[in-house]
Amino acid sequence: MDFRFEDIGPAEVKRRISAVEPLTESVRDLVDAVIRTEVDDTALDDARRQIDDIVARLRTEEKPGGFGVPFTRDLVGMPWGNAATGVRNAIAPPLRPVTHAGVSTAEVTLGAAYEGPGGHVHGGVLALLLDQLVGECASSGTSMPHFTGTLTVRYVRPTKLGQVSLRAEVTGTQDRKAFVSGEIHDSEGVTAEVEAIMIRPKEFAGRDEVMAAIAEATARD
Amino acid sequence: MDFRFEDIGPAEVKRRISAVEPLTESVRDLVDAVIRTEVDDTALDDARRQIDDIVARLRTEEKPGGFGVPFTRDLVGMPWGNAATGVRNAIAPPLRPVTHAGVSTAEVTLGAAYEGPGGHVHGGVLALLLDQLVGECASSGTSMPHFTGTLTVRYVRPTKLGQVSLRAEVTGTQDRKAFVSGEIHDSEGVTAEVEAIMIRPKEFAGRDEVMAAIAEATARD
Repeated sequence: MDFRFEDIGPAEVKRRISAVEPLTESVRDLVDAVIRTEVDDTALDDARRQIDDIVARLRTEEKPGGFGVPFTRDLVGMPWGNAATGVRNAIAPPLRPVTHAGVSTAEVTLGAAYEGPGGHVHGGVLALLLDQLVGECASSGTSMPHFTGTLTVRYVRPTKLGQVSLRAEVTGTQDRKAFVSGEIHDSEGVTAEVEAIMIRPKEFAGRDEVMAAIAEATARD
Repeated sequence: MDFRFEDIGPAEVKRRISAVEPLTESVRDLVDAVIRTEVDDTALDDARRQIDDIVARLRTEEKPGGFGVPFTRDLVGMPWGNAATGVRNAIAPPLRPVTHAGVSTAEVTLGAAYEGPGGHVHGGVLALLLDQLVGECASSGTSMPHFTGTLTVRYVRPTKLGQVSLRAEVTGTQDRKAFVSGEIHDSEGVTAEVEAIMIRPKEFAGRDEVMAAIAEATARD
């Protein structure tokens, strides 16, 4: 993995999020509007040219590659480009998982941008959100980074577009593995279930090793 | 599922795609630019206000809910809001699966918007794309719509951001089930493998039943 370190504290993190998040929200709104709009072709083309101008201005200063996952001086990760949770990523609904007593939960509203079958959430989007949640659950529950080894999603019935609830919990551990179970609910009950085998990378034997890996990667930059 | 029917042919389909697809492409570019830009806070705020204006104009005429999956008079589906493939959906990379002799393949470039671990593709994004591909494979291979029953993704190693290849094939069928296997490659080999159990809905016993379901849903509108 690529590590990057930024010598900033909570106040600067908060400032940066508040500067960019409203823009991300507006782009999410734009993604939805482009799917559903019925304006004429001329209006579509006008919108395209205006967006191209905005993109050109944003690209006058930009970092190469992905946003990455920089860490603050307090070792708080800033995965702001993350496809499921990123505060800079308009693709992310975004998911905002909360972990308490080993149980991770999230509530999220999935609109037109997350459609698969007509009027329903794309099964793959549910898999994306569940993958993020089981990772959060295994990592928070054990206080060590875990990556997904195997993700199994069983679709019980179609999930209507709208608000859904997600839940996951660690059901056991064995060496570097953590086993996580979870599900997605809509207003009428469970629509999908997940089982995941999560793996803690060998190099992360403990918190000291994680810090050493970040320091080493930062020194390489 | 929600069905909708539009009495249009291939020429009108092509015209509609060519009118909206460049706009969708520009929004994809914008999503990437917002993740990676390093312009100052004032420039971010200017971009936000300009985007809000564009959204307001696009929303002067719009359809409610999701885009849905309307069918043409030739029973060609138009899943243009689809989160993996949609020509109107900036979240979709987009995936463009091709099925030949029972094997579905796709090549796709995954940039900053699809990141999970730093510099790497989000495992859940790979699950999303694989879910779409196994659906395409089972449906094309059997000429009947199939939905995912169970999706199992095994992550072999991290997938770097950039171009990846996907492949899937039907390995067997049993009653209304189709079994599909596949994998994702990057330039250095396989990074993830998938096994899926696909299910043909009971009401789709044959092509006649699919047409009847569409006609009935259209008459209800």
